[in-house]
Amino acid sequence: MAFKPISEIGEFGLIDRLAKITAPSANQRPELIEGIGDDCAVWQSDESAVQVVTTDILTEHVHFDLLTTPLHHLGSKAISVNVSDICAMNAMPDYAVISIAVPPKMPVEMVEELYKGMNHAAEVYGLAIVGGDTSSSASGLFISVSMTGTTTPELLALRKGASPSDLICVTGTLGGSTAGLHLLQREKATMIEQMRNNEPYNKEVMAELQEYAEAIRCHLLPEARIDIIDFFSEEGIVPTAMIDISDGLVSDLGHLCRRSNVGAKIDESKLPVLPEARTVAEEFQQDVFDWALTGGEDYQLLFTVPKKDYDLIAAHRDITVIGEITEKEAGMMLTDIFGMTIDMTDMKRGFDHFAE
Amino acid sequence: MAFKPISEIGEFGLIDRLAKITAPSANQRPELIEGIGDDCAVWQSDESAVQVVTTDILTEHVHFDLLTTPLHHLGSKAISVNVSDICAMNAMPDYAVISIAVPPKMPVEMVEELYKGMNHAAEVYGLAIVGGDTSSSASGLFISVSMTGTTTPELLALRKGASPSDLICVTGTLGGSTAGLHLLQREKATMIEQMRNNEPYNKEVMAELQEYAEAIRCHLLPEARIDIIDFFSEEGIVPTAMIDISDGLVSDLGHLCRRSNVGAKIDESKLPVLPEARTVAEEFQQDVFDWALTGGEDYQLLFTVPKKDYDLIAAHRDITVIGEITEKEAGMMLTDIFGMTIDMTDMKRGFDHFAE
Repeated sequence: MAFKPISEIGEFGLIDRLAKITAPSANQRPELIEGIGDDCAVWQSDESAVQVVTTDILTEHVHFDLLTTPLHHLGSKAISVNVSDICAMNAMPDYAVISIAVPPKMPVEMVEELYKGMNHAAEVYGLAIVGGDTSSSASGLFISVSMTGTTTPELLALRKGASPSDLICVTGTLGGSTAGLHLLQREKATMIEQMRNNEPYNKEVMAELQEYAEAIRCHLLPEARIDIIDFFSEEGIVPTAMIDISDGLVSDLGHLCRRSNVGAKIDESKLPVLPEARTVAEEFQQDVFDWALTGGEDYQLLFTVPKKDYDLIAAHRDITVIGEITEKEAGMMLTDIFGMTIDMTDMKRGFDHFAE
Repeated sequence: MAFKPISEIGEFGLIDRLAKITAPSANQRPELIEGIGDDCAVWQSDESAVQVVTTDILTEHVHFDLLTTPLHHLGSKAISVNVSDICAMNAMPDYAVISIAVPPKMPVEMVEELYKGMNHAAEVYGLAIVGGDTSSSASGLFISVSMTGTTTPELLALRKGASPSDLICVTGTLGGSTAGLHLLQREKATMIEQMRNNEPYNKEVMAELQEYAEAIRCHLLPEARIDIIDFFSEEGIVPTAMIDISDGLVSDLGHLCRRSNVGAKIDESKLPVLPEARTVAEEFQQDVFDWALTGGEDYQLLFTVPKKDYDLIAAHRDITVIGEITEKEAGMMLTDIFGMTIDMTDMKRGFDHFAE
């Protein structure tokens, strides 16, 4: 029997296979609305209430680098990425439990700093950290956060539900997280180089980082768009479909289209690129639109609404309409800034943890 | 500033410090009944329903050794230890989400085997695996399971609530898991020795392991006592306090007594030691009562009931009354098999992940 390494089927291939294996257990609960395949699992807890739950694991050297990531920020981000998944269901977060595996030599004060960041974020979002488990780790820090939330059957938004002619909307700006990551990786290389040469830490680098504070903040301290869920509630808007942008716009729009069984056309010139990201991309001689389309980790919301909601949506200064849902047969098309039509399925997809 | 290594304050010391940090977030939810400090976090979701949630992390080289642990068994155990925490609240499990970090070279088939074990256990317990997250791991396999459950305000059992004169009861048998672990560790040493010497695998060892199948099953395939929760429900029994035995009887009884602000006296001769564990302990020249008292990982339920429930409890062939709750001032006392009184606070406590 030949064994297949995970890298051969990739992260999404692995998830598909695991979802098939666990389907029998999921099928025994008739009140389950969505299992694996959305930002959260969803079930109806009673006539008027829907419960959602999500989990995310952050692993050292894969998701973060302690050389460039303050632990307080990391704690905050671990909470925010889960809140973002809850928001993607048009739900509000309630409770979080946290499992960590910590190298035994890590000082208590560092773990405390991580939890201070978590508690701070939890207070901001109005959720409670109520439990967890701790273990030692032979190598590296692992943080797994699981979070519950609630909404109502009427307000629930899934990845499926978008229809042709629906408007495709995105919150905030894109590309900032990738810009920030590039800056931090360069900073790290410089630090290591200086350490090797026994040079003092170069303050000019620090000054340059301050200049790009916004991009670095996007990467280290993303904020879940709970404000948008409040806005939807105030205006009586219920997205026909929604997902958060963690893998990258093209990849996440792909998930939404597949689950909704539709196509999409988006307009590159309308993408809300973070202005600072343009400057950073120029410096790195990279295409900022590539960062905005495939960079990932922006933790903005990508959602669809019927055309009739256009005025309500357009009135919000931090929501941009970037395109329109089409029939499935039309595929996923991008009109680039030169007016050319590009098939998005040919574009580089989101980050794959198991890619070689 | 001097940094303190975690090993200096231990796992419970660390949890205490982290609970203080996250208390502000927990305090913002008035419907929270219990946060950190019980087997599950507990909140009232509506007038007639209580939600519970728990999380456990299993890390390679700390909690399990893939040389002696079949992945199907490991998957099943990862589910069972969480179900055990849910049962300790007198609740029933509903949904689980699973985060794993996997070395990228691990074959897909091994990860599938792990999930087959998880799904099998989930089907047995009637719960649904509904989501998760996957990441690569630089070193070793990490499995974090989070699980929700439900009960009612009337049926909820916490660690606190035991009163002097309540009976102390334990389900099933004790010491089996530690006996199994000793056998497997010896087996591993033999395997490594034979591999070093290029000898063929010795079948006599395997035959000997079969002889002790029950102890090994206790370690590799513990079963959460969901049957006892059904029994309580049928008989109208609500334990005044309950905890599952994961750290070891003395340690877990200590948690229950501290939270209930009471003392306890137990009778060593009444401990339901697994008969096979006695034989194994003799072979290893160890004290089987020590394994039963401090071994841990038996995943039995330890609970207290008022004396009036004695007849109901005594009628169940798999529940043993081992002692009685006392005033706090009387401490935690054990009458050993020779009739001597021993202070349990002086005994070796449960496993500490961060002990040096």
